[in-house]
Amino acid sequence: MNKPDEQGPAAQAGPLPRVIIVGAGFGGLAAAQALSRAKTEVTVIDRHNYHLFQPLLYQVATAALSPADIAWPIRHILKTQKNTVVLLDAVSGIDRKTRMVRTDGGRSLPYDYLILATGAQHSYFGHDDWEKNAPGLKTVSDATSLRQKILLAFERAEGESDLQKRAALLTFVIVGAGQTGVEMAGAIAELARHSIVDDFRHIEPGSSRILLVEAGPRILPALEEKLAAKAQQTLEKMGVEMMLKARVDNVDDGGVSVGGQHIAAKTVIWAAGVKASPVAEWLGVQADKSGRVSVDQNLNIAGDDRIFIIGDAASFTPDKAAHPLPGVAAVAKQMGAYAGKRIRAAIESGKIPGPFHYKDVGTVAAIGRNHAIVVLPHLKVSGLIGWLMWSASHIFFLIGLRNRMFVALTWLWQYVTWQRGARLITTENPHQE
Amino acid sequence: MNKPDEQGPAAQAGPLPRVIIVGAGFGGLAAAQALSRAKTEVTVIDRHNYHLFQPLLYQVATAALSPADIAWPIRHILKTQKNTVVLLDAVSGIDRKTRMVRTDGGRSLPYDYLILATGAQHSYFGHDDWEKNAPGLKTVSDATSLRQKILLAFERAEGESDLQKRAALLTFVIVGAGQTGVEMAGAIAELARHSIVDDFRHIEPGSSRILLVEAGPRILPALEEKLAAKAQQTLEKMGVEMMLKARVDNVDDGGVSVGGQHIAAKTVIWAAGVKASPVAEWLGVQADKSGRVSVDQNLNIAGDDRIFIIGDAASFTPDKAAHPLPGVAAVAKQMGAYAGKRIRAAIESGKIPGPFHYKDVGTVAAIGRNHAIVVLPHLKVSGLIGWLMWSASHIFFLIGLRNRMFVALTWLWQYVTWQRGARLITTENPHQE
Repeated sequence: MNKPDEQGPAAQAGPLPRVIIVGAGFGGLAAAQALSRAKTEVTVIDRHNYHLFQPLLYQVATAALSPADIAWPIRHILKTQKNTVVLLDAVSGIDRKTRMVRTDGGRSLPYDYLILATGAQHSYFGHDDWEKNAPGLKTVSDATSLRQKILLAFERAEGESDLQKRAALLTFVIVGAGQTGVEMAGAIAELARHSIVDDFRHIEPGSSRILLVEAGPRILPALEEKLAAKAQQTLEKMGVEMMLKARVDNVDDGGVSVGGQHIAAKTVIWAAGVKASPVAEWLGVQADKSGRVSVDQNLNIAGDDRIFIIGDAASFTPDKAAHPLPGVAAVAKQMGAYAGKRIRAAIESGKIPGPFHYKDVGTVAAIGRNHAIVVLPHLKVSGLIGWLMWSASHIFFLIGLRNRMFVALTWLWQYVTWQRGARLITTENPHQE
Repeated sequence: MNKPDEQGPAAQAGPLPRVIIVGAGFGGLAAAQALSRAKTEVTVIDRHNYHLFQPLLYQVATAALSPADIAWPIRHILKTQKNTVVLLDAVSGIDRKTRMVRTDGGRSLPYDYLILATGAQHSYFGHDDWEKNAPGLKTVSDATSLRQKILLAFERAEGESDLQKRAALLTFVIVGAGQTGVEMAGAIAELARHSIVDDFRHIEPGSSRILLVEAGPRILPALEEKLAAKAQQTLEKMGVEMMLKARVDNVDDGGVSVGGQHIAAKTVIWAAGVKASPVAEWLGVQADKSGRVSVDQNLNIAGDDRIFIIGDAASFTPDKAAHPLPGVAAVAKQMGAYAGKRIRAAIESGKIPGPFHYKDVGTVAAIGRNHAIVVLPHLKVSGLIGWLMWSASHIFFLIGLRNRMFVALTWLWQYVTWQRGARLITTENPHQE
């Protein structure tokens, strides 16, 4: 059932080593592509049919882009890679003794090499019941639900005569001031204060409260202090209120409690923490407190050079470094390419590459129109030039000419008109949550 | 609660006559726009926040366009029309004695004039249980569900080793060969035989069966026989099988029974019948067998010149005509403009327009790439020229420069590459229906 068709090249060459890649995010896709001409049977398993350009997901959640602008069918990306099969399925377990991957779809797939690139999920630090009222942003459906939640809040406020209830509908709390939180806060501020400002009759969307709640002492902890301070200034000018050193005690459908204070808010967005997918559990190994599994300098788990963990699911600390590498696209991509290369060398008896080395390619974060932070190895830029570089780099990294062209045009159009083109509420029951 | 803000123009001018428009499709929107400068308070109620360009909805269902390309927030369209309030709500009833509209959201809204433009829903001719397995196409969420159903069928077929089950997954039955059915059949044929043809390893999407089932003796009954015959030829060349004079006896999750014969098919799409929304019930009047309410030459219901019914919900038979006007966009638009004009004249004591007269603007239907039928009052075209005219006219009628530009570019890109850019399956559980 899971073998290539008999007319395929695999059958002619006899049984080939099997590589299974779980997850087709930045890491998994890079791994598959590194194996594109290898003498192996590659199977890519993902629970979604699309590869998602996650750095722009917040723009779907704030009605700027459509899902299809930043998501592309995995099998379409890999269609010319004839040694590769793509399966829409979810992994349920791994049997390391028999070297089998089991799936929700009832498959048992044997592997010679296994690359786990399962990414991260939201972490509510033990309060999973908060998720219902404070959703996060990881998948396309997270983004469209969040878009709907934000747009419905304005719609309901328009029809609400009770001023307290109206204020709660027009209060947006973003928990966590890392990159996603900062980008969401900036985008909601632009949506409320510009894009929809003339569309209502009873409310003034421009008077919405947008709060950014952060447990640490400052925003964007991954960036240096000076740049983060500039970003904070810009956000404050855009009307985003900062609550720093503020810890969330509770979230319910009425709002959020921060340091004992209750904030009435109908929209709470979780950008505070991620944890790795259940890789540790599948493998029966230890995970760190974020759910990540330690890998050695070859990205293998301890004592098993057939299993690689890459991207957000892996905890890899470079030689002499104090912290593991962060869960960002560039790390995942480089890890994927390395794992693929290493497996290919092993299969084809080529030169085994040396230990994994991460080449820093910089960090970017967009605060809003005309302001982004770009930190490259030898260059730090913020403000308008940073924003232009941010826009250009994101367009460049999108997959496919169509997406590049359409996102570029959408941004251009939006820049000139301030409008957001994807303001759709698709629920059939606007009076139910 | 539902009055304009005190600083609005309405308050300054004293109490104004209230016009309520239910539904912001082609008809309702045209009515609102005809009242844009009238001395009245207009309230537009719709259960969705968007106005939908329904003629292109089939392209969303077949992954060619994104929802945001053909849907636009109603309140954004009407934002400069200061006498108009837009409510996201659903009407639950009408009290003609007290002249009140009641809504699901708990509102009671008084009216002086009422325009009902509630459109049509699918009709299963008394077999509402078929809907689950044979969904239709009316809303954005219908279209994205259908897109997901079609794309998942290919994904499941790829993982299915049982040849019979695989064949059922690759069989697509479209019930009804009117315009929607014909367009869906053509679009699915292009999707299967071109767009995704190289993306799979175990199946050949190009070998999918696409059946168009029609109870009548021919396809496109609204068009003249010669043009319909040409369209049928084109569809057959594209690999669509015709089942004419074939009546559906049953639909279940295994497929469809047609004239006693069972066809195993995992995707059945309903394009066979529409019925009007429950306007007749709200008003306590008689409806015809399609649920439409008869209106007089002024588009009023019998004996009540404060209530207008327009578009698909109305049954209007022109003088000396044998049949009521069809449920198409052009009829709805002209009716909306007429109702708005008539109300404005009554309110402002202007010249009351004469009876409604429909000006035929022609009919169009797209069969597929390079083939559309265009019937204008003095011109009949099909084939490539028809298709170019069809494309141009649809782009022209879209709302907003952005949508026109993006749909035009999407089509251009698609024409050159054969690719469809919106192939997203967004369910979180690919193993559940």
